[in-house]
Amino acid sequence: MKFYKKSLIFHKKPTPGKISIKLKKKINDINDLSLAYSPGVANVCKEIKKKKKNSFKYTSRGNLVAVITNGTAVLGLGDIGPLASKPVMEGKSILFKKFAGIDSFDIEIKEKNPNKLVNIIKSLENTFGGINLEDIKSPDCFYIENKCKKKMKIPVFHDDQHGTAVVVLAALKNALNIVKKKINKIKTVVFGAGAAAIACLNLLISEGLNIKKTFVFDLKGILNNKRKDIDKFRKKFVKNKKYTIKEVLKNSDFILGLSTEKVIKGKFLKKMNKNPIIFVLANPNPEIFPEEIKKYRGDAIIATGRSDYPNQVNNVLCFPYIFRAALDYKIKKINNYIKKITAYSLSKLGRKSKDFSKKKLLPNIFNRKLITTIPYDIAKGFCKKKKKKFNKKYYFFLKNILND
Amino acid sequence: MKFYKKSLIFHKKPTPGKISIKLKKKINDINDLSLAYSPGVANVCKEIKKKKKNSFKYTSRGNLVAVITNGTAVLGLGDIGPLASKPVMEGKSILFKKFAGIDSFDIEIKEKNPNKLVNIIKSLENTFGGINLEDIKSPDCFYIENKCKKKMKIPVFHDDQHGTAVVVLAALKNALNIVKKKINKIKTVVFGAGAAAIACLNLLISEGLNIKKTFVFDLKGILNNKRKDIDKFRKKFVKNKKYTIKEVLKNSDFILGLSTEKVIKGKFLKKMNKNPIIFVLANPNPEIFPEEIKKYRGDAIIATGRSDYPNQVNNVLCFPYIFRAALDYKIKKINNYIKKITAYSLSKLGRKSKDFSKKKLLPNIFNRKLITTIPYDIAKGFCKKKKKKFNKKYYFFLKNILND
Repeated sequence: MKFYKKSLIFHKKPTPGKISIKLKKKINDINDLSLAYSPGVANVCKEIKKKKKNSFKYTSRGNLVAVITNGTAVLGLGDIGPLASKPVMEGKSILFKKFAGIDSFDIEIKEKNPNKLVNIIKSLENTFGGINLEDIKSPDCFYIENKCKKKMKIPVFHDDQHGTAVVVLAALKNALNIVKKKINKIKTVVFGAGAAAIACLNLLISEGLNIKKTFVFDLKGILNNKRKDIDKFRKKFVKNKKYTIKEVLKNSDFILGLSTEKVIKGKFLKKMNKNPIIFVLANPNPEIFPEEIKKYRGDAIIATGRSDYPNQVNNVLCFPYIFRAALDYKIKKINNYIKKITAYSLSKLGRKSKDFSKKKLLPNIFNRKLITTIPYDIAKGFCKKKKKKFNKKYYFFLKNILND
Repeated sequence: MKFYKKSLIFHKKPTPGKISIKLKKKINDINDLSLAYSPGVANVCKEIKKKKKNSFKYTSRGNLVAVITNGTAVLGLGDIGPLASKPVMEGKSILFKKFAGIDSFDIEIKEKNPNKLVNIIKSLENTFGGINLEDIKSPDCFYIENKCKKKMKIPVFHDDQHGTAVVVLAALKNALNIVKKKINKIKTVVFGAGAAAIACLNLLISEGLNIKKTFVFDLKGILNNKRKDIDKFRKKFVKNKKYTIKEVLKNSDFILGLSTEKVIKGKFLKKMNKNPIIFVLANPNPEIFPEEIKKYRGDAIIATGRSDYPNQVNNVLCFPYIFRAALDYKIKKINNYIKKITAYSLSKLGRKSKDFSKKKLLPNIFNRKLITTIPYDIAKGFCKKKKKKFNKKYYFFLKNILND
């Protein structure tokens, strides 16, 4: 069967969709019902009314994340709207459950106005323990995420930006380790200047990447000071000269592609430095296919966004684990520090693997060590920073979290 | 253990809350993942983008109801807010699942302004197949429900109003059957003029109850034309004279209590007609306790809202089944006709029971015939009205829906 049809049938049979509800408690008779619902439930309401924190003690909220979109930038499909985005959001929900034991509701909101969307999301704060923003178009996503973060007391995380940034940093660290280069010495060429690219660059720069030696291209060419369309989020990457792709690729060490298919030609790669690191992450088709890269650069370390090539840079290696720790340790802000310790933990797990190599930079998505390692490291780092005592028994909680 | 503590522990252990997420499809390897998420999911998005109806074919939406509140009138606890209302809404979600196999997300929205709340609910239309409004204060609930109904293409149902009305009608029909009285002949005294009382009266009047012989009291006394506080929803129940409770109870046949505890005194009941029907539905404590009624009227048929007395008038006898049929048959408006056929079906199921009596007016909540009978009758009636062909095989679908 063709893949297209197979994916439709997967979603349709035996019942439509990918997530359903499960009762956490048995309701077998009227006594159970009187505890779960009226009159017993009123006692629980009173306890929460007395003390807000009790909502985490008596409701599902403490393990519940909203996967929220307005459908304006879904996968590589663009602004397909909230309705058509639902399969992706349900997909995200199952990833939360499968990889980190986190319950999540997919919420598709029909609202394009950023302020109105922020108000709607804010109004849902009492329902959830965390907010995962998804597939909201740039630059709106920056504004929406920042506003939500300021207004809300639960973690808000735009995965398209920060999830990608964390996994890219982890993969880059390991690639640099193999080729024995330093992040602050390399010359970087970036294809794409969308939300993910900007978030990656911000994280990499905070990790030492030299902004002067970083050249960013979008569909209109290099970000430069002659252009009138550069917003405040992109301003810092602007160059004084209108370099060509060919010019900047000469003696470069690292390509980060977060744009669209076919924007890189094989022959461009010839003048890159020895052992170039080439991450071509456009989905579903990369900026240049690995086969084509290899024709010109057999010495390259290559990563893509695809599961059918080595080194898949996939956000699922990070967001379930970040939220696991954030929910368990009430981490309200998933800031640069949290992103870095996540990336360090992930890259370290990759390096510790017995098959660590240029073709295996990161752990396998289904590696069970991810759930016991990454949230653990995040929580430990968070406690250290906050000068709180960290309990090592968290490991056993994590070890059992997927046995539901 | 005391009931108060027991209800807290029930909600807390082994993990907090009452609902969690379950994967409908197995995700065991990278191939499953490539169907459930990127790249396979993109194909499903495209199909929905092409044709909106496909969202019911490929996502969980067609079996998914939102339980929505703003927490302004929660149980008998009043305006406790969205956070403290969450246990009730989760409770509602588990009732949907337990009794009708319907998945539901509890959504607590922090918004008291009716228009803003309507806009938020409307913005969530693409996420759900139906909206169950819950515990929103009167009179806002009327406005909010009506606006949502007008603006949205999925069923919207305020259970506190219509669920109660349906079950009261079913119970009343069966009580009248036992005492051999006709609905259009009886004299009625109503305690309470909130959302549930108004909705009950509207449904009962459409069924033949004589509005002239119906007297409605709230905390300020009888609804009468001297009062300045009567809104448009209550206007039609106004009397020209300021009758006392004692006056109107004389020669009355039916008391409908939807107010609060202790508002009825036993001695008031002495002058009611023979075989009075006394529904005292205030929660958790009725307007007068059954023991007290019996002291004065051994001939009464009594119903309460409680599980520990005979004849519990409980919305769970209706809302899961209405939504089951509404989802399965894409019934967009749960109007008076749908409410009536639901009440007829429920009352008939009660009468058909071998233990039908004045102490057993309605089926047991856990009776499995409810799921095979009520949605079936609703769907059949809907198809008849719409002149659509009805397929009797729906029975087998319903028979299996709880075997998840």
